[in-house]
Amino acid sequence: MAKIENKITIVENILRANDQIAQQNRSRLDSANLFSMNFMASPGAGKTSLIEATIGNLKDKYKIAVIDGDVASSIDADRAADAGAQAVQVNTGGECHLDAVMINNALNQLELVETDLLIVENVGNLICPSGFQLGTHKNVLIASIPEGDDKPYKYPQIYQNIEALVVNKIDLMPYVDFNMDYFLKGVSILNPGLIHFQLSCRTKEGIQEWLDWVESNL
Amino acid sequence: MAKIENKITIVENILRANDQIAQQNRSRLDSANLFSMNFMASPGAGKTSLIEATIGNLKDKYKIAVIDGDVASSIDADRAADAGAQAVQVNTGGECHLDAVMINNALNQLELVETDLLIVENVGNLICPSGFQLGTHKNVLIASIPEGDDKPYKYPQIYQNIEALVVNKIDLMPYVDFNMDYFLKGVSILNPGLIHFQLSCRTKEGIQEWLDWVESNL
Repeated sequence: MAKIENKITIVENILRANDQIAQQNRSRLDSANLFSMNFMASPGAGKTSLIEATIGNLKDKYKIAVIDGDVASSIDADRAADAGAQAVQVNTGGECHLDAVMINNALNQLELVETDLLIVENVGNLICPSGFQLGTHKNVLIASIPEGDDKPYKYPQIYQNIEALVVNKIDLMPYVDFNMDYFLKGVSILNPGLIHFQLSCRTKEGIQEWLDWVESNL
Repeated sequence: MAKIENKITIVENILRANDQIAQQNRSRLDSANLFSMNFMASPGAGKTSLIEATIGNLKDKYKIAVIDGDVASSIDADRAADAGAQAVQVNTGGECHLDAVMINNALNQLELVETDLLIVENVGNLICPSGFQLGTHKNVLIASIPEGDDKPYKYPQIYQNIEALVVNKIDLMPYVDFNMDYFLKGVSILNPGLIHFQLSCRTKEGIQEWLDWVESNL
């Protein structure tokens, strides 16, 4: 029993320390006068594809930086760099989420004052990232059509802790069973009035509304 | 520093305790003379659909039980029960994986001696479940085509800790960018000789090879 109490205390300490560093990160981002987003999603929902589309469309007007979090590999940072952003890869070494300390360290590697938009790509995971604030201005969830329409009901916490929702891969609607009304009903129960975008990074349908919203925050 | 050392010690204790209970679970499953699998996957890759297809095709010959793990809801256990299995729902209450204690408790609610096949559906997550043995006979990963072909490279640990791989949603191959050779090359580096099945739970293509393999283990 002592061990369990120890564990709970330590977990609470870790979360409190994380939130304090997240506040420091936010101060640094505010001082640099940039807009920042934390992209969260299941593996393969399209975080990197949305980052590529955002960079491709906005890089001529704004300086964009990306922090890519993955358990392993630098595939995503390579893709962001190829698309035209300054990119930093964070390998978590098995950890299932980014935390504020990792972001704090990654910020040291970016030219923040010259940056207009910072996108953090979290580890692909619908559960653990939602418990760790990073200090970014908006938490954005990327859902995808082939994942299925029951995800808000099965992973409620992450849907409650976001400020925007992107529903990607709408081009696959004809080929899978996805009831948009059922999906959005779940979302509205968990997060009433949440702004959301339906788009396809592959066909570019719906991308303009997303870009307009990003620009409105810059 | 003392806090971090405490944390590491406690995490090691938890994993060791988990493995001990997993061994107890295995003994119970062996005593009941049944075959058991632990299904792991990203959210929405098709774990529940594969369970439904397996139950639907084998329920007339074998008694099947399902333990469904989810952060919230009983959607998956309801689907398994509707398909014809004895089903137990485990709500993890925010935890990102099943552990051996949860399975131990769930086994108490099943008629093990009368059961031929037990399928455990883990929480949708490509990272955390791979660290916790449950005591089941085979760990099975369900990947899916729309998730993308880079997943073995980005989530190597789970690909190393499985005894079978199912690649689901092959009916979506014409509509997404998925290089099967690149995907399977990553798999073979991490887990040489791993048995794998390419199928679609939606169209039923490739399901028979999967069912034959399941039956060969019964």
